[in-house]
Amino acid sequence: MAELHNRRWILHRRPEGLVTLADIELREEPLGTLKPGEVLIRNHYLSIDPAIRDWMSDRPSYLPSIPLGEVVRSTSLGEVIESHHPAFKAGDLAVGVNGWEDYSIASGDQLMPVQPLAGEAEQYFLSIYGAVGLTAYFGLLEKGRPQPGETVLVSAAAGAVGSLVGQIARLKGCRAVGIAGSEEKCRWIVDELGFDAAINYRTSANLQDAIRESCPDGVDVYFDNVGGEVLDAALMTLNKNARIVFCGAISGYNSQQPVPGPYNFWQILARTVTLEGFLVSDYFARFPEAIAQVRQWLAEGKIVFREQVVDGLEHCLDTFNLLFEGANNGKLIVRINSLPQASGGSGLRRDQLNHATAASALAATQEETR
Amino acid sequence: MAELHNRRWILHRRPEGLVTLADIELREEPLGTLKPGEVLIRNHYLSIDPAIRDWMSDRPSYLPSIPLGEVVRSTSLGEVIESHHPAFKAGDLAVGVNGWEDYSIASGDQLMPVQPLAGEAEQYFLSIYGAVGLTAYFGLLEKGRPQPGETVLVSAAAGAVGSLVGQIARLKGCRAVGIAGSEEKCRWIVDELGFDAAINYRTSANLQDAIRESCPDGVDVYFDNVGGEVLDAALMTLNKNARIVFCGAISGYNSQQPVPGPYNFWQILARTVTLEGFLVSDYFARFPEAIAQVRQWLAEGKIVFREQVVDGLEHCLDTFNLLFEGANNGKLIVRINSLPQASGGSGLRRDQLNHATAASALAATQEETR
Repeated sequence: MAELHNRRWILHRRPEGLVTLADIELREEPLGTLKPGEVLIRNHYLSIDPAIRDWMSDRPSYLPSIPLGEVVRSTSLGEVIESHHPAFKAGDLAVGVNGWEDYSIASGDQLMPVQPLAGEAEQYFLSIYGAVGLTAYFGLLEKGRPQPGETVLVSAAAGAVGSLVGQIARLKGCRAVGIAGSEEKCRWIVDELGFDAAINYRTSANLQDAIRESCPDGVDVYFDNVGGEVLDAALMTLNKNARIVFCGAISGYNSQQPVPGPYNFWQILARTVTLEGFLVSDYFARFPEAIAQVRQWLAEGKIVFREQVVDGLEHCLDTFNLLFEGANNGKLIVRINSLPQASGGSGLRRDQLNHATAASALAATQEETR
Repeated sequence: MAELHNRRWILHRRPEGLVTLADIELREEPLGTLKPGEVLIRNHYLSIDPAIRDWMSDRPSYLPSIPLGEVVRSTSLGEVIESHHPAFKAGDLAVGVNGWEDYSIASGDQLMPVQPLAGEAEQYFLSIYGAVGLTAYFGLLEKGRPQPGETVLVSAAAGAVGSLVGQIARLKGCRAVGIAGSEEKCRWIVDELGFDAAINYRTSANLQDAIRESCPDGVDVYFDNVGGEVLDAALMTLNKNARIVFCGAISGYNSQQPVPGPYNFWQILARTVTLEGFLVSDYFARFPEAIAQVRQWLAEGKIVFREQVVDGLEHCLDTFNLLFEGANNGKLIVRINSLPQASGGSGLRRDQLNHATAASALAATQEETR
């Protein structure tokens, strides 16, 4: 396996604010050779996630910072080309925490084999069956612990995680209210996903009041992806003994100043709130159970999921920055080394995969769970 | 019961910063008459607590703000003088959320009858058998959920609540580390109370480093009474899945600016921490169980508790401000209408009640639980 060259996005400076070409650049490097236990993967899909911004900084977090001079870390899905690990052979598909690069060399112990069923696109394992779907699933159910009849509020509700959180909340018999940044997004989560209400935080004169109006019985679970002012507003609307699932804080990821916690922090005491930090990786052993459940909901048309797939490794950075402009529509994935798959009946389109399911089935579910 | 006059501390302005005589003043008012269901109490002891500062402000909290023109709210213990409630008769002792005043008129439904055992001072029911002791007990055990061998860090560790938290942590087989504001306090919690280590936050060059040194295995439970910079430092030392008991935030109570949450708020996600707001009043139904346990520990010499009793209603304000200077030594109580009690063998002194117990018994316990 000689002479393979590898294009890789390399971090060569810690970004301040939005990431630019001054911080990361696409370089071509010779591919190394495999050590025992390692696997060579030709990546097909790269995951574009807000968390990557956190890993680029040098503040302490749940994973080490990406070292300068190293590839930008991301989850990827690809095909095994060569394996020095007993669990993998050429042709297998595997998911792992690799990087924005054509090829990855990884320890087989750190890879998860995946096997799409007929009609399932490979990249589902980077989205609805991957960190995104399982973050919504475990974050809401294990940390939010929603009870039927309760109100679940979610920020970045048209985002990959948030859109699923609201739908799972509905399936569990809760009122689901989403906060999003455009009228189109608000319409989408209510009309297509079945949220009970949506709030456009960009046009609300007073976000607290808007939440109170949409959550007349108060908020029992707040699933937070954004932090900042939205978290501050949500804190003022929580019921006693409410739960906050602290899943992300995208509003602060590009800040060049230290970002304080919420100004309404005291409300956590005053309302005896439980706030829990959540990392999906802690639930690794239970991924199969969650994938089976999400797969069933998808098959039954009970959840709708949206991916936005962009072609070309060279577009990783542009695509990444869409996240911070709120300009993406669903889970962002970059496709490389792979033609679009003709997956049966999933309405796959080249630039945007809208896995919308029968609206009637969803509507029926809504009636049942209202 | 006519012609009784009542001296009362009245809130007539919302304080900015430290409370002064421009905010509250001692007035003499005629005592009202009892309605059905009400009880007239001659107060013996008034509780002086940081939380009262919160109630004086108009920010939303777990109790309504004290209305302007009303008595400063506090827990008090007194003797029933007249009762229009079937559960109380003249001569009974009762605790309730009343005010800094000679006499209180309260609904009997809102009062708790108390009965000191032989040798127990009345004011125990405002301290170790009251909100202070039960806050330490339920806060640590129910919210902190300490496991044997874990490390429990507590701020304001020489304070009324903190000093008990560390001792209960030791009784549960944990390493107990306290943060306090003077060398004397640090010596006291280690030498007299049996904490494993103490940190003087005023003289530590780097509080994070000091915590790491005293907590070589990291912190599993952080019991927070102060918020602010101490909370920020503690956040950087937490183990994965640590618990924070959010019991108070005295560092911010006198602030005239909005007080942000901790700058290291992100660590709650990165370390998958659970932060829980705690109010002892939520455990009202379980007070008897806790009092029985604390009473037993006290009888067995397993815990040491310190009260600072000041005589005279006119000293409520000075005494209250000691809290914010860190100048008190133990639970602050103002005594009125009552002579010091000759409680058997508890080493009662006029200005400071030091319920120290046999050091040898404590040392034995330490050995057992180390």
